[in-house]
Amino acid sequence: MSVNLEQLAQLLGPKGILLDDDVKARPNYAWGQGSCPARAIIRPSSTEALADAMAMCYDAHQTMVPWGGLTGLVNGMTCSEQDIAISLERMNGIDSFDTDAGIMVVNAGTPLQVVQDAAREQGWLFPVDLGARGTATIGGMISTNAGGNSVIRYGMMRNQVLGIEAVLPDGRIIDAMNEMLKNNTGYDLKQLLIGAEGTLGIVTKAVLKLQPAPLRTFTAMVVCDNFDGVKTLLKSASTQLASSLTAFEAMWGNYYDLNVAETGRHQAVLPPHQAFYILLESSHSQVTETNPLETFLEAQLESAVISDAVIANSEQQADQLWAIRDDVEAKMIFRSPAISYDISLPLRHMQAYTEQLEQALANFDPDVKCVTFGHLGDGNIHLGIGPLSDKKAVNDIVYNLLTQFKGSVSAEHGIGLDKKSYLNLCRTEAEIHVMKSIKTAIDPRGLMNPGKIFA
Amino acid sequence: MSVNLEQLAQLLGPKGILLDDDVKARPNYAWGQGSCPARAIIRPSSTEALADAMAMCYDAHQTMVPWGGLTGLVNGMTCSEQDIAISLERMNGIDSFDTDAGIMVVNAGTPLQVVQDAAREQGWLFPVDLGARGTATIGGMISTNAGGNSVIRYGMMRNQVLGIEAVLPDGRIIDAMNEMLKNNTGYDLKQLLIGAEGTLGIVTKAVLKLQPAPLRTFTAMVVCDNFDGVKTLLKSASTQLASSLTAFEAMWGNYYDLNVAETGRHQAVLPPHQAFYILLESSHSQVTETNPLETFLEAQLESAVISDAVIANSEQQADQLWAIRDDVEAKMIFRSPAISYDISLPLRHMQAYTEQLEQALANFDPDVKCVTFGHLGDGNIHLGIGPLSDKKAVNDIVYNLLTQFKGSVSAEHGIGLDKKSYLNLCRTEAEIHVMKSIKTAIDPRGLMNPGKIFA
Ligand SMILES: Cc1cc2nc3c(=O)[nH]c(=O)nc-3n(C[C@H](O)[C@H](O)[C@H](O)COP(=O)(O)OP(=O)(O)OC[C@H]3O[C@@H](n4cnc5c(N)ncnc54)[C@H](O)[C@@H]3O)c2cc1C
Ligand SMILES: Cc1cc2nc3c(=O)[nH]c(=O)nc-3n(C[C@H](O)[C@H](O)[C@H](O)COP(=O)(O)OP(=O)(O)OC[C@H]3O[C@@H](n4cnc5c(N)ncnc54)[C@H](O)[C@@H]3O)c2cc1C
Repeated sequence: MSVNLEQLAQLLGPKGILLDDDVKARPNYAWGQGSCPARAIIRPSSTEALADAMAMCYDAHQTMVPWGGLTGLVNGMTCSEQDIAISLERMNGIDSFDTDAGIMVVNAGTPLQVVQDAAREQGWLFPVDLGARGTATIGGMISTNAGGNSVIRYGMMRNQVLGIEAVLPDGRIIDAMNEMLKNNTGYDLKQLLIGAEGTLGIVTKAVLKLQPAPLRTFTAMVVCDNFDGVKTLLKSASTQLASSLTAFEAMWGNYYDLNVAETGRHQAVLPPHQAFYILLESSHSQVTETNPLETFLEAQLESAVISDAVIANSEQQADQLWAIRDDVEAKMIFRSPAISYDISLPLRHMQAYTEQLEQALANFDPDVKCVTFGHLGDGNIHLGIGPLSDKKAVNDIVYNLLTQFKGSVSAEHGIGLDKKSYLNLCRTEAEIHVMKSIKTAIDPRGLMNPGKIFA
Repeated sequence: MSVNLEQLAQLLGPKGILLDDDVKARPNYAWGQGSCPARAIIRPSSTEALADAMAMCYDAHQTMVPWGGLTGLVNGMTCSEQDIAISLERMNGIDSFDTDAGIMVVNAGTPLQVVQDAAREQGWLFPVDLGARGTATIGGMISTNAGGNSVIRYGMMRNQVLGIEAVLPDGRIIDAMNEMLKNNTGYDLKQLLIGAEGTLGIVTKAVLKLQPAPLRTFTAMVVCDNFDGVKTLLKSASTQLASSLTAFEAMWGNYYDLNVAETGRHQAVLPPHQAFYILLESSHSQVTETNPLETFLEAQLESAVISDAVIANSEQQADQLWAIRDDVEAKMIFRSPAISYDISLPLRHMQAYTEQLEQALANFDPDVKCVTFGHLGDGNIHLGIGPLSDKKAVNDIVYNLLTQFKGSVSAEHGIGLDKKSYLNLCRTEAEIHVMKSIKTAIDPRGLMNPGKIFA
């Protein structure tokens, strides 16, 4: 069924609706690929206008696809020809900022970087950070429960959100703009909207809790000769650096070697062909005379947990270390055609999983290579696998092995369209059934982001 | 409707069911008050046995009331004569403890203190703590999303739970025993069960994330002459002590004076009759030569944010400071009959609220006194009000004023039976409607903890 576009246009004004070529000019897949086939893109400028438009769509049984910055990586924003896309691009900006309490009220269409910059100016930190910061919106990040590099210290988006405003499929506005850390009055509905990938309604505003900005940050990269060393290092860093540990990022030798030795894209800050390279960051709110990360790493060298280390002496050196970790492009270029995976599993299974995966891939096709890296402190690794001809076969190898270790097919990015058929590998039938009951309770006509998450 | 008790007894064995006097011997209200009128109390010893019993109850349209340690403060565990109480007292103990990762798998009936002690033995901390630690169970704490003194640093129960096992009203087992920090695969169902007060199902197991135990803790109590000073102190402590700040507890002068000067229950560690007394605690994972809390407070004294301070020189002295804060009994004895409130509101409204409340109470009855204290760093305060004759009238004064400041009628304790009629003061009609849709989706027959949270 479909809503009357003229009525929608009348409701939203000339800026409020895009049609025809303006729609086709927008992408339909991740990374800006494809051309949007939707009937229209609407761009309301207020919660009330959005609510009225959604009520109109609801009455007409019109399917709706929420759009943030379109930086999502699982095609959660993909439209069919029957859909209306609802973009929050005109619902952006910061509504208020309590600089005493570190609480910011923002519109869902606000790009991450706007929030980060406003926070920083007042001595606060918005601690979720990701490469797409200029474009990814707060609403999209809430809807995908985005992660990033500092999850080990600050948690994912879920941990930063105190309150939410959202519009339900039928146009009802949910005002849950709670500002308190503690509010145990009935079910915490925002928890359901966080990570729902737009299948339950549209997030329009959020109350964000900021963190005090650290004064100093120290960065280092070290070598571990085996995975036991990596685990010992992580435990020691977690207990001794404790809450000052703001990043623990791992690169398997195959990733470091590709980015540094094989492609020469980065300077060899540490010798290549080692087993594991770990990037550590510690952040402090007080000025210290010594470098606590250096003190910590000296002890690790002495007890042979690590075999080599380089400690950044300047911000520029720190950036150089991060650049090696963050260069996710090399694998897509030099292993093309490649797939990138975003999985998580318990740390105690990590070594067995990666070893068995290498073996399974070698058996499948000796030419296929895997590079491994990621947020190890969170049990979250990324795999880059290629060159490959049979995407589906490799998906099956990666995910089926993963389920033997109780892992997750999506640590950060969500399910969207892309991982639908693997949802049942990490959620039980009973769980999926309950999810669907909730979906039906809140979106009885199945109009919100149809076909995403579950079939 | 009602389940056949003989069939239940057959299913669960002789230890699995209590009848008649054994039921009446158990309480029906908070603080061990009353006598349980339920048809029976069942005590399954495994998830499977519980699931079978619940399926049997579901088929018979039998209402069920989950029981943990019965330390809840809002009568969430109260039974009627039609109900069956389901106690988790035989489903307790720790299933496994990954001491590398700091991850513990526990049965829901396990008392908090058992978890705390087992963690501490291995250098880990389970950071939610509350007075009822010997009796309160992990399942009850999850179901009430319990808080406590360290929320400012570690968050509430919600933040400690990685995974959950639960049984739905119809006996289906939800195995969501996730161990990962990151798992974005569909709706996060555990978030819905956390804080649901047993209205959606019974939590049977949990995967808990532990924290590294700090090595050293410093404690101090200081005086602020006005509320602006309190706010400045909190902001400075949050930014400068940052994540080492593990408690920021406030006592209004009226609370300190009652516990210390008026009743002589505690030694006057600071002179009485001051405006505000703040208890601060900072915890550190590294041995420091100086006392960072002392350094911080010296600067606050110099800039006149605080006007007096006492710093604990020993654990015993720290306990003495905490004892003044934790003596919640004095108000119940010396203002009897008194009511205790657990509310939260944005910090920027705190002063106006407490001042207007004092005024409103004085207008209502000049003999009624209010003492105020609580987890100020979380925006959560407790009020002790008495002596009073008309409980309802005082409830209305406290809560109606609160809604003008966008506060919550329950910061920590939940809604249960006691606060049902005030839920609509801090949740909108649309929110309550969605909550009820979810309740209906998961518990279509309305059998789980009937009459709790909403009417
Ligand atoms: C270079 C790059 C780096 C990245 N790094 C990370 C990373 O480190 N960690 C990580 O977790 N992710 C990362 N991502 C992916 C991440 O999911 C997105 O960047 C971000 O969370 C999505 O925000 P968006 O506004 O672009 O949402 P979109 O892509 O527009 O939408 C994402 C999903 O949310 C829905 N949605 C969007 N807005 C709303 C709303 N207001 N209400 C309801 N539903 C909505 C959409 O329908 C879609 O299903 C990265 C992406 C890129 C391109
Ligand atoms: C001295 C004292 C100090 C306290 N201090 C604090 C404090 O600082 N912070 C704070 O937040 N609270 C505090 N509380 C109250 C707090 O709610 C409880 O202590 C605790 O969370 C409840 O645990 P319980 O096992 O006793 O649950 P119960 O009292 O048995 O039950 C509480 C609610 O949860 C339900 N329930 C119980 N177990 C389950 C289960 N396994 N699955 C589903 N539903 C279940 C019950 O039906 C009921 O609705 C205090 C209580 C006391 C007596």
